[in-house]
Amino acid sequence: MRPTITAFERSPDLGRGLARDMRVRWAMEEIGQPCDVRLVSFEQMKQPAHLALHPFGQIPTYEEDNLALFESGAIILHLAQKHPGLLPVDADARARAIAWMFAALNTMEPPIVEYGMSKVVERGQPWFEARQPMLEDRVRTRLGQLSARLGTADWLDGDFSAGDLLMVTVLRRLPGSGLVEEHPNLAAYVTRAEARPAYQRAFAAQLAVFNRAAG
Amino acid sequence: MRPTITAFERSPDLGRGLARDMRVRWAMEEIGQPCDVRLVSFEQMKQPAHLALHPFGQIPTYEEDNLALFESGAIILHLAQKHPGLLPVDADARARAIAWMFAALNTMEPPIVEYGMSKVVERGQPWFEARQPMLEDRVRTRLGQLSARLGTADWLDGDFSAGDLLMVTVLRRLPGSGLVEEHPNLAAYVTRAEARPAYQRAFAAQLAVFNRAAG
Repeated sequence: MRPTITAFERSPDLGRGLARDMRVRWAMEEIGQPCDVRLVSFEQMKQPAHLALHPFGQIPTYEEDNLALFESGAIILHLAQKHPGLLPVDADARARAIAWMFAALNTMEPPIVEYGMSKVVERGQPWFEARQPMLEDRVRTRLGQLSARLGTADWLDGDFSAGDLLMVTVLRRLPGSGLVEEHPNLAAYVTRAEARPAYQRAFAAQLAVFNRAAG
Repeated sequence: MRPTITAFERSPDLGRGLARDMRVRWAMEEIGQPCDVRLVSFEQMKQPAHLALHPFGQIPTYEEDNLALFESGAIILHLAQKHPGLLPVDADARARAIAWMFAALNTMEPPIVEYGMSKVVERGQPWFEARQPMLEDRVRTRLGQLSARLGTADWLDGDFSAGDLLMVTVLRRLPGSGLVEEHPNLAAYVTRAEARPAYQRAFAAQLAVFNRAAG
């Protein structure tokens, strides 16, 4: 059976591929596994049927035969372990690539999401401007460390892996801030990933959904 | 070769087992794998030797033969895949337990860390009090969803797994807030986990380090 994932019926990202279904779409294109996409509204995401799939009422979810998964990182790891193309075959290299998956989601993403969310949720607050430098500095610290580790390499550890895929989707959550661009090697890293045919196909697919919804 | 992990020479958590080495110590006790612990100072964590092991200058790290890993989630997944005791054998159940590992680290932990960090970093700021209800509400939303999913079960999905181990270490970052206690099933879940002999041994080991450093 073809797996089914869920995605926003109307993504708040204006078609820029920032929602977390983009990660799973991209991973599925990298491994050449077609999937069905079921679109859900914000209202449906809070209903029991969706909460049974995703306890935190978010997207994406993943359904395949009798297995239902949530959490984009877990879905991608599941795909990467089942199909070649997203993780090295060598056991040690595979463990290191998985470490980059966790680093993307647990070390890089939280300060980046916090910074982005402040601009949406707290923009009208009297403290908004005063807190921005602190939030930016947190992101800058992590970007500086990531840039130092990447150096002149194309990818974080050997060949392109699910670790790079997740890291790039996290870095793409900083558009317009100029923070990634402070590190030319990180900006080139994102561009290099976005040029992958699998990325292009996934991006086009999510953009088509947005454009249809926008009518 | 016995694996070696790193931990704080002087943990800022006052021996409460909130630093991320506790997760790895606990996992190693669950699988019955002894390890050596190398203590590092905050100054050493920023030096090239440590940054070669951990690009973001944190603890824990994990070294075993020719493999070096960082990110507590990745280390625990590596251990859980190598040794029985932390993940189900059935492939679908295993994928679901791994989803809980990612949920603990990527969905539950970020708002909990943000809430805890605000109390340390922003307590003196004029906006501190005004922002607390918002930060608390974010945590409350996630705790409510987690409580609803756990229901009357002992563990999140079948037997105790690495997903429960990580989730409990995340919930333990909320001491004194009373937020976990708003959900008796979550409070009992944490207590149930803390009663495990492997947890007790790991807790005692990290406390001994703290007490020695405190002299």
